[in-house]
Amino acid sequence: MKTQIDYKKELEAASKGMIMIHDPKLLIKLIVRTIVHKVQVRHAGMILHDPNKNSYVLKISRGQTGVKVPADFARFDNNNPIIKLFTQNEFKSLINHRNAILTEDINKLIFGETLLDPQNGAKDLLQQVMSQMQMLNTVACVPAYYQDKLLAILLLGLKNDGNRFEQEELNFFGALASDAAMAIRNAQLFEDLKKEAEKNRDLFLRTTIVLASTIEAKDKYTHGHTERVTNFSLAIARQMVANGSANFPPKFFESLYIAGLLHDIGKIAIPESILNKTGKLTEEEFHIMKQHTLRGVEILKPLSEFKDSLEGVKYHHERYDGKGYPEGLKGEGLPIIAAIIAVADTFDAMTSDRPYRKALTKAAAIEEIKKNIGVQFHPKPARALVELFEQGKL
Amino acid sequence: MKTQIDYKKELEAASKGMIMIHDPKLLIKLIVRTIVHKVQVRHAGMILHDPNKNSYVLKISRGQTGVKVPADFARFDNNNPIIKLFTQNEFKSLINHRNAILTEDINKLIFGETLLDPQNGAKDLLQQVMSQMQMLNTVACVPAYYQDKLLAILLLGLKNDGNRFEQEELNFFGALASDAAMAIRNAQLFEDLKKEAEKNRDLFLRTTIVLASTIEAKDKYTHGHTERVTNFSLAIARQMVANGSANFPPKFFESLYIAGLLHDIGKIAIPESILNKTGKLTEEEFHIMKQHTLRGVEILKPLSEFKDSLEGVKYHHERYDGKGYPEGLKGEGLPIIAAIIAVADTFDAMTSDRPYRKALTKAAAIEEIKKNIGVQFHPKPARALVELFEQGKL
Repeated sequence: MKTQIDYKKELEAASKGMIMIHDPKLLIKLIVRTIVHKVQVRHAGMILHDPNKNSYVLKISRGQTGVKVPADFARFDNNNPIIKLFTQNEFKSLINHRNAILTEDINKLIFGETLLDPQNGAKDLLQQVMSQMQMLNTVACVPAYYQDKLLAILLLGLKNDGNRFEQEELNFFGALASDAAMAIRNAQLFEDLKKEAEKNRDLFLRTTIVLASTIEAKDKYTHGHTERVTNFSLAIARQMVANGSANFPPKFFESLYIAGLLHDIGKIAIPESILNKTGKLTEEEFHIMKQHTLRGVEILKPLSEFKDSLEGVKYHHERYDGKGYPEGLKGEGLPIIAAIIAVADTFDAMTSDRPYRKALTKAAAIEEIKKNIGVQFHPKPARALVELFEQGKL
Repeated sequence: MKTQIDYKKELEAASKGMIMIHDPKLLIKLIVRTIVHKVQVRHAGMILHDPNKNSYVLKISRGQTGVKVPADFARFDNNNPIIKLFTQNEFKSLINHRNAILTEDINKLIFGETLLDPQNGAKDLLQQVMSQMQMLNTVACVPAYYQDKLLAILLLGLKNDGNRFEQEELNFFGALASDAAMAIRNAQLFEDLKKEAEKNRDLFLRTTIVLASTIEAKDKYTHGHTERVTNFSLAIARQMVANGSANFPPKFFESLYIAGLLHDIGKIAIPESILNKTGKLTEEEFHIMKQHTLRGVEILKPLSEFKDSLEGVKYHHERYDGKGYPEGLKGEGLPIIAAIIAVADTFDAMTSDRPYRKALTKAAAIEEIKKNIGVQFHPKPARALVELFEQGKL
């Protein structure tokens, strides 16, 4: 006895949720797998419209007997015979009655009693379609349209039971192909938009790096300082999470990254004569120099939604004992993002050569940091830095 | 005679293409309109899950008799009786047999022979549901689930013909509500992603503005110069399109905007002593000053995909007669983006006060520009600027 398939139910089951899958590759795999498994054909594939290139691509071929081609390998332009057959009005009468073209149809059309219009090259085209279908190991091509536009062609191999396709089955495939094509298009649009969002984010971050680099173009003592402070800061924050002294959300690391890059941006507004002075600064010069924290916040005002990052810029010269600037914040009143940068900034300054003194060794700098835990430095980031040193990670 | 509706066909027609509509508001309108018109109910509405707030929102109510509430006005949390009825397992037996709840069902359940479990408060809940449905002027609530999650509830008013809803109709509404809810969710995700892409783009542009502002923090003579050059450049380009001398794609205006903002960014690397010198520069100082074009390109290397913008930065001191710098490009060999900025830059410099000379009037500056058309300036942007002046648009 022949087992009957409830096509309506199968279609609903197969289509349901397709729209929620936004990974085009995964979606196409699922759709073709559904066809192969549920509908019992030896293999199935899909030719999909690529709106970016206005051509068609063989996306996947799956099953025991399908032609194995790498994804996106085979492209079909509008002159491809199969595409022509399904898109050009003069040929539509050849397929209208079945919503599909089968190799058996082609044989009947070429060798049968119905006379083909000799004017429009239908016979030639059908012979070309036949040879393409044989190449693709396909016995039925089922088109899917949306608003008269050919979105996809489903390619079917022989049925597992060796029987011919029935009209009910072809109608089912047509509906499935159409749902599938729209879901795939939807997923592709989704992917495009996601890529655009990521690209724009990357652009923002790269512009931030450019912005940070302007300080180094001015201040000859800071070569590489910005990058090192950023890296030390991120390492300290990770270590604070690792040793259980803090629990930062992923967004914090982004804020810290931006704050690290831009912590000294206000120096752009400090006169070069002070910035690059080799000797000790006078009291007045130091007073001007200290303004770089607030000038930084001023410069970054257009990015004020990065509240945490701006706090890092503003308060990275505050001290745990309240003797820092610009506000003399104290103890736990100090934003942790600023406390982290303060440790990273001081450590990098101590371990870098300056014209008026040689760099300390890392070990000596760590000793200095240790002595100042709870005095100049917030204990949590300072201890994290010491741990990183002890673990050989600095 | 009662007209029969082919529900399967209606469902296909209504669902088809929903996935291609990515504006949630439009999509919801279309769906509710479809229900009201095709299915002949007096009004319909939809309560939709809002994943961002983990609650439900009455999105729209449409028809002759529906409760008129502003979109997003009515929120339903998880304690709302209707939401509870469709989400809590202990109440599911109350609706299982019909895939919906109707006021007539509730009356039967409360006053009928079936005994309600007195333990779980079903009776109380049903009474609350009834009063909510009366408030919403609804006789049937049809839930839509995706992977066991309540996505939406379709609210139906009375049928136009006054008859009761039949089970076949309710099944149809259930399938439609489910397709609709997924399409709406899809559209919402799309909108979120689009907003994110736009937000990130905006962030990039604002960071570019911050970057541009760093020059003004250094160079005291350029206050407002960057912004004015950018605006003049855009006006010139628009005028070139208006007078038919050029045909720029939209992307060009973005490149020009960025190039205008950043054309002098390389000055950040020029010593303040030269940048802010009040007297005439020595030959050597001028040699250093001229490097700002190439230093600009160097600083902007991380943004090298903005090829046009970088050409604007690099070549905005080239002259049409080939006597400019850094490369002495000549005539049509000059990138048009740079030629535009050159005109805008010179015009703004001439009409601004400098310590060693007073500003020219606009008319005098325009005379200077005119004299130099085809000499210092590319004729197309120079003529466009003259036209803007003559039209009183400067």
